[in-house]
Amino acid sequence: MSTKPRISKGTRDFLPADVQKREYIFEAMRSVFRKYGYQAIETPSFELTSTLMGKYGDEGDRLIFRLLNSGEKVKRADINALNNNELPKFVNSISEKALRYDLTVPFARFVVQHQNELSFPFKRYQIQPVWRSDRPQHGRYQEFTQCDVDVVGSDSLLYEVECIQIFDEVLSDLKLPGFSIKINNRKILSGIAKKSGAEEYLITIVTAIDKLDKIGEQGVLDELRQKNVPEASIKILQPLLSFSGTNEEKMILMTEFLDGSSIGMSGLKELQEVLDYISNLGLRSGRLEFDITLARGLNYYTGAIFEVAVDQVKMGSICGGGRYDNLTAQFGLKDVSGIGISFGADRIYDVLNELGLFPDYTQNSISYLLLNFGGEDMKASLELAHKIRKKGVDCELYPSNAKIQKQFKYADSRNTRFVIMIGEDERKSDSITLKNMESGLQEKIGRKAFLDQL
Amino acid sequence: MSTKPRISKGTRDFLPADVQKREYIFEAMRSVFRKYGYQAIETPSFELTSTLMGKYGDEGDRLIFRLLNSGEKVKRADINALNNNELPKFVNSISEKALRYDLTVPFARFVVQHQNELSFPFKRYQIQPVWRSDRPQHGRYQEFTQCDVDVVGSDSLLYEVECIQIFDEVLSDLKLPGFSIKINNRKILSGIAKKSGAEEYLITIVTAIDKLDKIGEQGVLDELRQKNVPEASIKILQPLLSFSGTNEEKMILMTEFLDGSSIGMSGLKELQEVLDYISNLGLRSGRLEFDITLARGLNYYTGAIFEVAVDQVKMGSICGGGRYDNLTAQFGLKDVSGIGISFGADRIYDVLNELGLFPDYTQNSISYLLLNFGGEDMKASLELAHKIRKKGVDCELYPSNAKIQKQFKYADSRNTRFVIMIGEDERKSDSITLKNMESGLQEKIGRKAFLDQL
Repeated sequence: MSTKPRISKGTRDFLPADVQKREYIFEAMRSVFRKYGYQAIETPSFELTSTLMGKYGDEGDRLIFRLLNSGEKVKRADINALNNNELPKFVNSISEKALRYDLTVPFARFVVQHQNELSFPFKRYQIQPVWRSDRPQHGRYQEFTQCDVDVVGSDSLLYEVECIQIFDEVLSDLKLPGFSIKINNRKILSGIAKKSGAEEYLITIVTAIDKLDKIGEQGVLDELRQKNVPEASIKILQPLLSFSGTNEEKMILMTEFLDGSSIGMSGLKELQEVLDYISNLGLRSGRLEFDITLARGLNYYTGAIFEVAVDQVKMGSICGGGRYDNLTAQFGLKDVSGIGISFGADRIYDVLNELGLFPDYTQNSISYLLLNFGGEDMKASLELAHKIRKKGVDCELYPSNAKIQKQFKYADSRNTRFVIMIGEDERKSDSITLKNMESGLQEKIGRKAFLDQL
Repeated sequence: MSTKPRISKGTRDFLPADVQKREYIFEAMRSVFRKYGYQAIETPSFELTSTLMGKYGDEGDRLIFRLLNSGEKVKRADINALNNNELPKFVNSISEKALRYDLTVPFARFVVQHQNELSFPFKRYQIQPVWRSDRPQHGRYQEFTQCDVDVVGSDSLLYEVECIQIFDEVLSDLKLPGFSIKINNRKILSGIAKKSGAEEYLITIVTAIDKLDKIGEQGVLDELRQKNVPEASIKILQPLLSFSGTNEEKMILMTEFLDGSSIGMSGLKELQEVLDYISNLGLRSGRLEFDITLARGLNYYTGAIFEVAVDQVKMGSICGGGRYDNLTAQFGLKDVSGIGISFGADRIYDVLNELGLFPDYTQNSISYLLLNFGGEDMKASLELAHKIRKKGVDCELYPSNAKIQKQFKYADSRNTRFVIMIGEDERKSDSITLKNMESGLQEKIGRKAFLDQL
């Protein structure tokens, strides 16, 4: 019986050219990560449900893919729970494992589990797929690759500096013409809430401010009012929303604004130190921008917060990250400060595609195709193919003595750079006819001379 | 609340040294695959259940990991089926997706789905994890990586030759001192069954013969008798089991034995052609051995059958493969011949480990660690680190002004090759003290001279 082939919604096949382009991005990352002393680790695709559940909030829990228990174990299905519409309980009765939802929680589990095998500060990178049962839609997939760099076991600000350098190096290596690395500090946000006299509304305020890009200043003000933030506090906050200026001007503004808030001032001090280091070292194509309204994932981050946006393409951030102080505490290891950043591979792919920044070799080509004229000619070609590969050069011998048009068509479809022909003439004279597929020019040269110049 | 961190049984964390060693193996494969014109593709981790089920036999179906439908969809659980102990029906009512069980069926689905985007013969490689809910035990995992090379759309024997060359090149590049590439042909096996007068016992005969390595000649004979293969046929088969000799001697034996079986003779002819090509081209460290008793996966293969075994390590085969003629037919595309081989990454890892064949650089080291003496000294070190990386060399700056012993301990734990120290002296004289961590020797040299020689 034959089934019409179909892929599961929200997943993707990657054809050769896709894989090459994605690999180009990953390799750019890996080589920078390694240059900064980060080491690759890998964790399993699925974890015990107890490791993942409850770590991502209610929405996260709902989007985690669960694996069904195997074999007889499904008999333990809790029918009562199902009948009572207690779906989580029902699901737990038939599922003990779940697919990785991100790389961060498995990393925390990894660090705690292997703490005696690791040296701290532990610097790791991890490039692996994650899965979310989001409703599939344009640009949102149920399976996608995360690229994370983290260091745990040190609260040194040098790692904030390193994160910024890594953003800059990776994206510069990928030849992005311009991008801003936005930085803020959770302590500054706490100070802002405090100074506005609405400390208990910290999360409300930050959540609203975080949407500034999308809903505009008026939208933020409306949301603050809706959520009952006192009008007096809103009045204090408002100037921050619309303030634009250089990093220095923002530092001056905030130094005034946060005066008297020790947490706010400590955030500013950290930020200033990072800005100073970076201004000393310089960046290649990125601009470091203090963004007072940058907030992402406040409940998670405890210090620096990062986000990267590309100048020439309208889309959300392509990278993010920040410092956290309690990631491993959920697995029993306290007081381990860490900082991590994440690259959005799919978005970076889209940006490079849109700006035409993928190099030519990602067009999936082969260097040499040897045509096949059968018999002794073919044997001579097979031997030559073997010798070309011995030189480390890729080549293919067409598999059968098909019509020459068909063989050339294959050469075209594979973006072949050169076609090699060995017919009776060439075989007897120990030569080849070499056709440059781009220029169309062809020449007859000795086989040895050809191999020598490879 | 903290959970004691634990990994799901049958899965593995890979620490940095593991990842490097595994990557060393994968890269050896990839570079050979590319040299032969194979292109990487990737398919999703999960497929529609209908794509996978029924393709691997009953045991396979049982070992496929099923994903639970998300959200409200689990309400459709078929309780009647559960109560009637119709587990597959129950499972189907709450699961529509399943994790990849191998790379072959998804590849067949891929080829059929994308047939208009591909050029044939289509040569692809694929290195991705697969999942099986096998009972975890030593050396058997629920998640493991498969490394497959296949070409579909041609029945040319040149691809049999190519598969053998690829085995040889990959394993020679990995410096395996000796290994045999066993080859047989399903047509020869068919001929054997026919000539023994027990054609209807083909599968029984082949299944028994396939166990020769494990249960010995007597074991095979016992099994044949148990399965009611006629005594006259067993008598005809017996000499084949114990025959040893060179490929040439085996060819002579089998040419006699199969005389009159057209399918058998056609298998021998194919085999002879492949042996001739390879004997012409030569192999690097592998030996090509005609193995009359090699059978693996008979119902799947239609022509050549391969298996690779290592000389110095006792374990099952580390690679396998063969020609198949109907892989894509299950998805509606008929008459597409293909051939594919697969490398067992975990077993190859174990072999290299046991024989001490991993190169030094897989020991997870960093080139330079800059010690941190705080203040202006640290700033000078930070700047130097930046310059070292600009040269493309990896280095790290220790994150804090910790005790020097602690910093050296970290250097040791990271297998650092050189430690760089910039204290007041070095800072003022624009120099560094460079310590070779292997020899213990240290010298003071100018910073510029140091950078120039990087």
